[in-house]
Amino acid sequence: MAVQEIRLEDLDPQAFIEEKVAEISSAVEGLAINALSGGVDSSVVTMLGHRALGKDLKTYFIENGLMRQDESREIVSTFADLGVPVEVLDAQDRFFGALKGVTDPEAKREAITQTFYRDVFGRLVRQSGARYLLQGTNYTDVEETVAGIKRQHNILEQLGIDTQRQYGYKVIEPIVQLRKSGVRAVGKALGLPERIYRRPPFPGPALAARVIGEVTRERVATVRAATKVVEEELSGTGAFQYMAILHEDRVTGIRDGKRDFGLQIEVRCWESKDALAGRPTRLPFDLLERLSQRITAEVPGVVSVTYNIASKPPSTIEAV
Amino acid sequence: MAVQEIRLEDLDPQAFIEEKVAEISSAVEGLAINALSGGVDSSVVTMLGHRALGKDLKTYFIENGLMRQDESREIVSTFADLGVPVEVLDAQDRFFGALKGVTDPEAKREAITQTFYRDVFGRLVRQSGARYLLQGTNYTDVEETVAGIKRQHNILEQLGIDTQRQYGYKVIEPIVQLRKSGVRAVGKALGLPERIYRRPPFPGPALAARVIGEVTRERVATVRAATKVVEEELSGTGAFQYMAILHEDRVTGIRDGKRDFGLQIEVRCWESKDALAGRPTRLPFDLLERLSQRITAEVPGVVSVTYNIASKPPSTIEAV
Repeated sequence: MAVQEIRLEDLDPQAFIEEKVAEISSAVEGLAINALSGGVDSSVVTMLGHRALGKDLKTYFIENGLMRQDESREIVSTFADLGVPVEVLDAQDRFFGALKGVTDPEAKREAITQTFYRDVFGRLVRQSGARYLLQGTNYTDVEETVAGIKRQHNILEQLGIDTQRQYGYKVIEPIVQLRKSGVRAVGKALGLPERIYRRPPFPGPALAARVIGEVTRERVATVRAATKVVEEELSGTGAFQYMAILHEDRVTGIRDGKRDFGLQIEVRCWESKDALAGRPTRLPFDLLERLSQRITAEVPGVVSVTYNIASKPPSTIEAV
Repeated sequence: MAVQEIRLEDLDPQAFIEEKVAEISSAVEGLAINALSGGVDSSVVTMLGHRALGKDLKTYFIENGLMRQDESREIVSTFADLGVPVEVLDAQDRFFGALKGVTDPEAKREAITQTFYRDVFGRLVRQSGARYLLQGTNYTDVEETVAGIKRQHNILEQLGIDTQRQYGYKVIEPIVQLRKSGVRAVGKALGLPERIYRRPPFPGPALAARVIGEVTRERVATVRAATKVVEEELSGTGAFQYMAILHEDRVTGIRDGKRDFGLQIEVRCWESKDALAGRPTRLPFDLLERLSQRITAEVPGVVSVTYNIASKPPSTIEAV
């Protein structure tokens, strides 16, 4: 399938919404289902699907144990205010079980993909009777997956994977022609709150993409606490994306006058238009030192903090 | 043995030199031996020993394969200009053999210590007939070793290790009462070139201290190439110390449009008086980005570069 991009300057958000709502209405027979992560992509798809299908759309928030602090509660509450019911499904044990002992980045993404689609979502669809899945794949996902840079978890069809045969449902991708800037414009036109349509990108594998090496509950808790600090300190910068990454490498530190072989957190903060290229935000050193002081003080075990100074390419936005 | 510090403000470099030259002369019977690394500590000890003993001091540069680019050639040439003969001993195979498969930082330091003292140096002393070893231990080394923060390779006596019994020679430490600033003042008074008496500290385990994980010839070559860039770019900053560290963690990158699971180099640049406390130098972002661009372009396999933003404590100056 060749996907045709709709550029931001050619996008009429209201016309786009009407067209997609009509397409979803006519494509779906019976129930459809979708997973809401709280990012702008899945939030826009949830709104489009809700307009098209009303209560024939079942929206789930999958609690995979890999989300940020308080994320599930905040998302459910935000969508309740918009009149969209969201059901939370606790699947933490399944995800951590699938991730146990896995250290290779591709294998981690694969474990999350398989757990999400085959185990958790396949089961939900079978239980619900829905045969349609709405997904927030966007145009950059398609490009990067086709180029082999990264495998997005929501890009199965572009890779020639037949979800209907393999998983039992058909995938509909309403925003696959848009880049992030277009999705944000549609989100605003749909009446989503600004904190959602302006929200920095967050990866499909969530905090698992922020852990180098094995993803355990304890290590996710560490990177979650560091992420909270980074988001609090950097949300005011207007940067494209910012993140905390927990390294597997241990480095020497000192606590209470004694040697402490501890953890290192890497902070990245990106200037980018579309994630295809990027450079580090030139943060003031007062802010960089405050980040480091807070992270080493507030996140148990961390003795060292770095700031990424590479550009994309040759770096990528995410480390995993 | 309780060591009494001589503070910089109480130090008379010329009087100190005369006193230490006299002490060394009266302590040594027959031949003495010392290892010159090219750092200010071992350079000062070499000059003091040479003044005290003349040709009864045998000075060796141990080529351990862990030094920076062109380091052995430059050091031998500098000391030849000062009238001090230095013999180069190629012991690379022994060091890499001892480091094979070793990943724990303490075990790496121990492997280097044992190779240096027992194997390479013990052998040299036995062959030379010398029973005295001159060493550049300074006051900060003593403090940090006693505190258990880091084990310096040149601090055996402070740990209650009897080198005479274990290795067959007696250790003399002429600068053990001085911190780095005092050693530099004595180096200047001894007529050492400024590039030596002002030289930033470099760790005993050399580039092995800059490699997280196993130390191999290939990994040392990687960190050596990154170190060259860092030293070229940061030598003009006046910073206390600056370094490149090769991580074991791999991160995702992109080369020629394809995913490249590559290496990450961490850069540290410290403001410090005495290495007991330190904070990151507030380098301009133009310089940080140039560092990153040069390292990713010039060092094969590197796709990502970070700058350390933590203070000591809780960080330490070195990562390993």
